[in-house]
Parts: sequence; C-alpha cells; structure tokens
Amino acid sequence: MVGYNINNIKITNPILGGIIMSLIKDMSKDELLALKKELEKKFDAFKAENHQLNMSRGKPSPQQLDITEKKVNKLKNFVNYDEIDVRNYGGLSGLRSCRELLSDLTGVPADNIVMGGTSSLNLIYDAVAREFIFGSNGCKAWHKLDKVKFLCPVPGYDRHFAILEEFGIEMINIEMDENGPDMDTVEKLAAEDESIKGIMCVPLYANPNGVCYSDETSERLAKMKTAAKDFRLFWDNAYGIHHIYKETKLANIFELCKKYGTQDRLLYFFSFSKVTYPGSSISMVAGSDNTVKEIIRRMSIQTIGHDKVNQLRHVELFKNAEGVYSHMRELAEVLRPKFDIVLDTLEKELKDTGLLTWNKPNGGYFISADTIEGCAKETIRLTKEAGVIMTDAGATYPYKNDPKDTNIRIAPTYPSEEELQSAMNIFCVCVKLAGVNKLLGGKE
Amino acid sequence: MVGYNINNIKITNPILGGIIMSLIKDMSKDELLALKKELEKKFDAFKAENHQLNMSRGKPSPQQLDITEKKVNKLKNFVNYDEIDVRNYGGLSGLRSCRELLSDLTGVPADNIVMGGTSSLNLIYDAVAREFIFGSNGCKAWHKLDKVKFLCPVPGYDRHFAILEEFGIEMINIEMDENGPDMDTVEKLAAEDESIKGIMCVPLYANPNGVCYSDETSERLAKMKTAAKDFRLFWDNAYGIHHIYKETKLANIFELCKKYGTQDRLLYFFSFSKVTYPGSSISMVAGSDNTVKEIIRRMSIQTIGHDKVNQLRHVELFKNAEGVYSHMRELAEVLRPKFDIVLDTLEKELKDTGLLTWNKPNGGYFISADTIEGCAKETIRLTKEAGVIMTDAGATYPYKNDPKDTNIRIAPTYPSEEELQSAMNIFCVCVKLAGVNKLLGGKE
Repeated sequence: MVGYNINNIKITNPILGGIIMSLIKDMSKDELLALKKELEKKFDAFKAENHQLNMSRGKPSPQQLDITEKKVNKLKNFVNYDEIDVRNYGGLSGLRSCRELLSDLTGVPADNIVMGGTSSLNLIYDAVAREFIFGSNGCKAWHKLDKVKFLCPVPGYDRHFAILEEFGIEMINIEMDENGPDMDTVEKLAAEDESIKGIMCVPLYANPNGVCYSDETSERLAKMKTAAKDFRLFWDNAYGIHHIYKETKLANIFELCKKYGTQDRLLYFFSFSKVTYPGSSISMVAGSDNTVKEIIRRMSIQTIGHDKVNQLRHVELFKNAEGVYSHMRELAEVLRPKFDIVLDTLEKELKDTGLLTWNKPNGGYFISADTIEGCAKETIRLTKEAGVIMTDAGATYPYKNDPKDTNIRIAPTYPSEEELQSAMNIFCVCVKLAGVNKLLGGKE
Repeated sequence: MVGYNINNIKITNPILGGIIMSLIKDMSKDELLALKKELEKKFDAFKAENHQLNMSRGKPSPQQLDITEKKVNKLKNFVNYDEIDVRNYGGLSGLRSCRELLSDLTGVPADNIVMGGTSSLNLIYDAVAREFIFGSNGCKAWHKLDKVKFLCPVPGYDRHFAILEEFGIEMINIEMDENGPDMDTVEKLAAEDESIKGIMCVPLYANPNGVCYSDETSERLAKMKTAAKDFRLFWDNAYGIHHIYKETKLANIFELCKKYGTQDRLLYFFSFSKVTYPGSSISMVAGSDNTVKEIIRRMSIQTIGHDKVNQLRHVELFKNAEGVYSHMRELAEVLRPKFDIVLDTLEKELKDTGLLTWNKPNGGYFISADTIEGCAKETIRLTKEAGVIMTDAGATYPYKNDPKDTNIRIAPTYPSEEELQSAMNIFCVCVKLAGVNKLLGGKE
C-alpha cells in the first residue's frame, strides 16, 4: 500500500503520518536561532561548491536509455499484418500488432485503441481541442459555452493543468487521499454542475504523489452520474507499468465503464515515453466504439497518420507484454537505488523534525513532499541558490497556485546516484533553513 | 517550362494546347455509335480480366522505399549539438543539425524552422487550429468571427480543402495558369475582404497539375496588400525537391516576405514524406521570428516534443543537402519511366481526339487531366467498374465540387510499371467511352 500524507489533508495512514510532531517545531527562539546559524553555514558551504544540478523534470537517466538502445536492431521485414508495408501511407489507427501489444498491457481491446505520435500529452491536448472546436456526443462545442470547468485532483501534473488553462477551462481543486481523489466531492460536483466537463486522472503512481486509485475509486468514477452529457474521464495511465518496489494493480476502467453504460465517458491514454525513449516512443488513446470512430474521423482530416515504422520497431523490440515487463524490471533496478537515496536521506535528515512529510511510492517517477505551510516556494528558492534546480513550487497545482504553499515534487530519475545524493543533502538543509526561518517569524 | 492546359482556363501554351480540336469530337452519330460498340467490347474485355488496381493516392512504390531502407543504419551516437542526448526529453524546436539540413534545402534560416512530427499536413492543421482557437497578430480568434474565407487555387490538394472545410472556412476557387494562381483576382480579393484570412499554395509541382509558381507570382504573394492583419500565406512546398524531368527553381518566399515587410504572413511547410518513408519521416514549419515564437509558445503546451531520434536518423542518413539531392535523383530514376508510361499512353490513345487534355509536369507526384465538360465522374466510375481505382472526380476541388466535372488526378507512383500500363490502357478506353456517350447524348 502506498503511504500518503501531506499536510493539507487528513492523515489516514498513521504508520506514515507519525512524523508530524517534531523536535524543531517545538524549539524555543534561542534554540532556533542557534540552529539557523548552523544551517546557514552549511548552506553557504554548499553554495561555495558551485553545484549545477537540475532535477526539475521526470527525465529518465542516460543509463535507462542505454538499456533500450542495446536492444534496438535495424528492422528487417516491413510487411506486417494484412500485408501492410509499414513504410508507406495507410493504417490511420496504427499497426494492428502494436495495438495488440498495448491491449495486453492495458486491458483495452485492440479495436478500441488508436495509435498517436510520440507524445500522449499531444493526444490529451487533441482530445481537449476536439471538444473545444467541434464538441462531441451531440453536445455544443466548448468554445460556444460561457463556462467550462474541470475537476483536478491535487497535487497533479503541471502539463495537464497547462492544457486546461490554455483553453480557458476553469480548474477546480479536488483533494486526494491514499485511495485517489475525494470521490464524495467529485460525485457531488459532477452530478450538479453541467458546466463540469471532465476530470484529469493519473490513476497509478500519480504524478507527483504516487497515489494509486483504489478499485472503489475507479468504480465510482465509472458509475457516477454526471450532469454534462459530454463529461470526459481523462485516464492518463502514464505510469501503468512503472513499478519500482512493489506491483500495484489498477482496476480495468474500460470494463467498469462498460458495466455501468458510461463507456463514451472514457479517454484512456498510455505511452512508452518512460519505457523506451521520451519524445521518440509510441502513444495511444482508447475509448468506446463511438469514441474511437469519432477520433478516427477527426484524425483522418488532421494527419496523414503516425509513425508505423516506429510502432513496428517497438513491436520487434519487445515481441509481447512479457517482453515489456521484463524490460521494465531492468529499468526498475536502475531507479530503485535512486528512490532509496531520496527516501533514506529524507528519513535521516528530516524525520521527527515536523518540517517535512513525504510519500513513499511503490512506483512511478516522483516523490511528493510537503513542508509546513508557506515554506515550499522559499525552499525551492534556496535550493536554486545552492545550485539545485527542482520543479517550481506551485507547479503541481492549477494556475501554479498551491493554496498552502507546501507541496514539492522531487524527481529522482535523471541525476546520477552521486549527484542525487548531493542534491538531497542540499535539499534537506534548505527545507530546514526555510522551516526555521518560518518558525522564527511566528515567534517575533 | 511546364506545360499547362485544362479546359476551364484560357490555353496559354499553344505547343501543348494543340490537342483540343479532334477527330472523335467531330464524328457523326453513326460513327459515334460504331465507336461506342467497339469501346464497350474493349471495356468488357478489361472487366473480364478482373483488375484490382488502386492508383487513387500519391503513394511511393515499394521500390522507392527500398532505396531508402538500404541506407538506414542503426544509430551509433545519440549525443548531438550542445551535448543534447537526442533520446531524452528537451529541444522542442527540434535538432539543430536537422534544422540546418532543412535550412539548406529550403533557404529558410535554421532559427526560423520548427520541427514537427511525421506529417506536415498535421502542422498545417495545427496552424489553422491555432488561428481558430487562439488567433494571432493581436487579431480575434477565428471561432469568434462570423465568417472566415480562404483563397484556394484549383485544382488543388484535397486534404488542404478537407482541413478548411472541417473548420467551417469558406473556400473560394482561384483559377490557375502555368504561372500559378490568377494573381489579379487574388490581389483584389485579399485587399478588399477582411474575412479572407489566407491562401493555400503548393508552389512547386502543384498537386495535381504540376504547376510551378513563377518568380513574379511568388513576389506578388509576398508583396500584396491584405485587408486582414492575420492573413496567412500557407506555402506547402511538398514537392520542393521532387524533380523528375528537369529541375525547376522556386523563388525564396522567406526572403521575399522579408523584403516587403510581410514576414509574419508566411507559414512555410516542408517534409520528407516522399523522400524517405511517408508517415514515418520528418516535417517542418517555418516563419518569421514572431511566428516561430508563437508556434513554440503554443507547442510547449501541446506536446512534449517531436521525435528527435528520427530527426537524427535522417541527418545521419543524408549528412547534407547534396546527400538529399543525390537520393532524390535515385528516386527520380524509378519515377521517370512511370510518368513516361502515363504520358506516352495518353499521347498514343487520346491525342487529337479532343476528349482529354493533360499537363506534362517536370516533377512532383501527379499528372492532371481534363475531360470534356461533364465527363470526369463518369470516367472514374467506368475505370472503377473495370477494376482501376483512381482519385475520385471532384476531389481536387473545394467541397469535392468540380464545377465543370472535368478534372482527373492521375497518380502514377505506386503501381509497378506493368500494372500502370494496364491501368492506363483501361483509363484511356474509359475516357473515350464516357466522352462518346456524352457526345451521343448531345446529338439526341
């Protein structure tokens, strides 16, 4: 089970929540001033070392990419299923063999999968754009409506929020616990407000807090009534096979939507961005028969088709789902020591200080941490001053506005283990320094 | 000079226009009836042979694709310019080395080029979508306007027209001669009507009539006044290096727009769809500094980036512009005999009949032909009945509406030479049969 505890929600997992009460938090002013002096010394020492570490984005490391590169061979036979020459035009929905591979990984039938280009984010953008420009399910195009709103579980993925903002869609924060978004609120809002047109979900190892949606959450998302006939469940399963410590199972949302007759609600996204090469891999969108028909109809005007040679390259590389799983286990071997560094350093430096709480995800790409209120921005400013670039504070919230200024996204994948250890040492000092300054402010 | 003669415009090239007056056209009813009987016999014989030939799209042949395949090697070094690891995220505008290669081919500075995915059509769609959703140059988004119109040189590319129709843009036919679109009309309409927001151009070896825009046409397009501040010159140079018989030079539209201070008007598209693998190659859009800034700003929300590994693959394959030209000369060797078959068969079977006129392009992918009025649809129906699928009649006009029902697009590239000869034999009989029936109808 994924631990989950951030300051701005009720702690539901007492095992992981025990680090709230703390030493530093209860210090007197004099003790704090002494500690401050000591921290500033450490901080200045770090600065003097001229660090230039960027851990702001969830980028794989060169070591991960090498694992893939060793396996990619020159393609020999371009004639795939049904005698299609994959090097030529045709086959808008993508290679059958590739869709079958993705079907085995996602549990969505191959006929309900449409291949995209190298970016599932682009498919998400296109899905929002289609609704904005044309509309769907016989409903008005969104550009003709006064107001369109989306439910946004927070903290979440900055690029999702950026797309919604770009289209002028109002974003409503939805708190999360260890089972996913607060479903009571989601159900209530979706049922009563027709202008709420969708919800943005990363259901497994959510970016950034690593939360995995429980079966009940998935079922309620499939089952719930929505006032909008064109409500869309954006299911961005970006980390669906990215287990690191332990495999977490996700309910089959496609089957659940079918069971409750809400299949036209679902837009299922998946990609190999963090399986092979980010920005040069394959992506897919899936949905009901109606949805796929509509996507293909619009895509036939939009593009000549996506890269079937690259799709074939991926099929040849992995052969089948087990080939992908085995590759992911190799990648996990590279990632695990890095997650260990982050978690061990946080534990060592910040446990029982009351200045930081964090999750311990079983997979995915991030560790999410929360400072005491009003300290995230200052912490990130300090790490930057000491030469470590982290994801901007606030980025994990719509409009870059973290209402309590607590959430920080730690992205351990890209740096080498050595760099990561340095970065985490610096980060922990900055958390303490920002926290101590804050506490001192409260005592003036 | 490119020959150009279709029925619905004034013939300006008498050397190629001499096939208008004819034997069959002047036949008596009895002569026509006898000929009809004979043609029907031939037609039925073709039908009995059970042909299944599809020459409806401009697809390269497997032979062309093999030429590329032999040259593609496994990549060895992924570290490109500025130590970028091309396998990873980053570099939204695309690989510098790839943009420099395309700069050498197009005459647009590398800094003014943004790489797209595998389809330049998708970049054209995105450009229209950006104007529709957001607007540009401080002008209203097109979805907020009552009416948006585009100038469409005809005959033209069906997929361009499909995009404009998808966005509800009204298309205005612009006649062409051997120098490109009728510029007097273009200038007049663009200057007086603010709702005219653009023109769709394929300036070299235009699809389907092979017309190459003269330097004067290019200059007038760059120089002309437009009532709309956000008028866009769509410059889809899809066949910019696709010479077959003779190299035709195109004016540098980027420089011309700069010269006349209209650089923000230009959207320049180019791709390797018919250089390497259609649907799996590289594409670009270029424009002024302002335009590129705007594209990158929107793209940073839209996508995680396009396939840099594939961009590198293309750079490694060709090394430089001369590498591309030499590759194109190899491809032309495959294409020339096919264009010869079409032109020779038309010459042999239809010269001096008055039933068909056609162009003789120096490059590109198509031969455009015109029947006598009201015969294109029937000709295509007959070829289909005899087992040869050609591009639908009307497809080369906005709304699939060829007002005189004369234009037929012949796509010689995909079939083998043997198949193409069969197809052309069948086509010529169908042109004659449809023509004879039409003439008989006129005599009843």
